Amino acid sequence: MRYFIYPGAAASLILSAATIGGRASAQAEDSKAADPARPDPGLMQIPEGYRDWKLISVAREEGKQDDIRAVLGNDIAIKAYREGTLPFPDGAIIARIAWALVPSEENNKAFGQAQSHVAGAPKNGVQFMFKDAKKYAATGGWGYAQFSEADGKPLIDKVKLAACYTCHQPAAAHDFVFTRYSLGGLAGQK
Amino acid sequence: MRYFIYPGAAASLILSAATIGGRASAQAEDSKAADPARPDPGLMQIPEGYRDWKLISVAREEGKQDDIRAVLGNDIAIKAYREGTLPFPDGAIIARIAWALVPSEENNKAFGQAQSHVAGAPKNGVQFMFKDAKKYAATGGWGYAQFSEADGKPLIDKVKLAACYTCHQPAAAHDFVFTRYSLGGLAGQK
Repeated sequence: MRYFIYPGAAASLILSAATIGGRASAQAEDSKAADPARPDPGLMQIPEGYRDWKLISVAREEGKQDDIRAVLGNDIAIKAYREGTLPFPDGAIIARIAWALVPSEENNKAFGQAQSHVAGAPKNGVQFMFKDAKKYAATGGWGYAQFSEADGKPLIDKVKLAACYTCHQPAAAHDFVFTRYSLGGLAGQK
Repeated sequence: MRYFIYPGAAASLILSAATIGGRASAQAEDSKAADPARPDPGLMQIPEGYRDWKLISVAREEGKQDDIRAVLGNDIAIKAYREGTLPFPDGAIIARIAWALVPSEENNKAFGQAQSHVAGAPKNGVQFMFKDAKKYAATGGWGYAQFSEADGKPLIDKVKLAACYTCHQPAAAHDFVFTRYSLGGLAGQK
C-alpha cells in the first residue's frame, strides 16, 4: 500500500497562508495562538495504514454530499468505542472515507430488479479527527483534517477547517463524534 | 469481543434435515454427495473475529433487503483483492454485514437539512463466503453461510443456501464475488 505523506506540508502551509491566503487566512495567521482552527503539522499528514483500520460504521449522505461512506478507527478509537469510553482518549483517530454511490447492473441481475448501489469513485475527500485534549483544546479536543481524494493534498483553508468543529457541535454529548459503533450483526456481540 | 460459535451445529443439522426438513431437504439428504448445497461443519461456524476484518467496500440495497452493508475480508481475501488475484485462493473468507438504514436527526442538524442516514439495527443476517476450490467445487469453489442477526444461528435450509450460488452467477467472471475493493479515497492508493 502506498500513502501520500507530506512531511513538508507544514512549511508549505505557512507559505500558503502568507502568499495565497485570503482575508480570513491572513487574519488567522496574525492571531495564531488564539485561532482554534490553525492546522498544525500533525493535521497535515495522512495517518499511515488508515485504510486498514477497523470499521466503526457506514452511512449514506444525500444532499450536496451524495455519497456512501465508511468510518474507520485506529485501535485506540475502536477500544474506546467498544468499552464506551467518553471522552475518547488521546491518540484516538477516526477516519471518514466516502465514495460516489453508483448503480450496479451486475448486482441487480442477482436481485432481479434495479435496487443495488455500490461504492464508485472516492468522493468528498478523506477526513480525520485526531484526539488530543490539550493540543486541540480550543476545538473540543479534536483536530480536524481533510485530504483531497484526487491528489491526497491536505486542506489548509483555516476557515473551512474551523467549520468542522462548528458542524460537530450537535454531537457534543458524544465527544463531538457523530458516528456510533455498529454491531457486527449478531445479537449481543460487540 | 464475543462471538457465537456452534460446535454442535453439524450434528443438529443432520437432525434437522431428518426431522423438520421438507421435501427438498429430504431429497438433498438422500443424495448427499451430489448435493452442491449441503452445508458442512465449516459453514456452520462464524469465523472468529470477523467484525475486525478489513473493509472491502460498502453498498446500499433497496428493495426487499432495504439495508446498508459493509463487506469485510480476512487477510487472505484482502491480499488477493489488492493484488488482483483471481480466482481467490483457498482460505479467503468474505463477510457481508448489513444494517437497517435509518435517518439521523443528529447528523441532519450538522447539514442543516434532512439528508443523513446511518446504520441502525443489524438486518438480513451475516453472510460469509468461504473459498475452498476442492471442497466447494460444486458451487464454484465457494461455500456459503448465513447466520441470523437475532441469535447468531446458522441457516441450515439447503434450498435457501443453494440459492446463494445461483444468485452469484452474474459475478462468475469475478470468481462469483460481487464486491470490488474500494480505494481508500486517495488517488493511486490501494
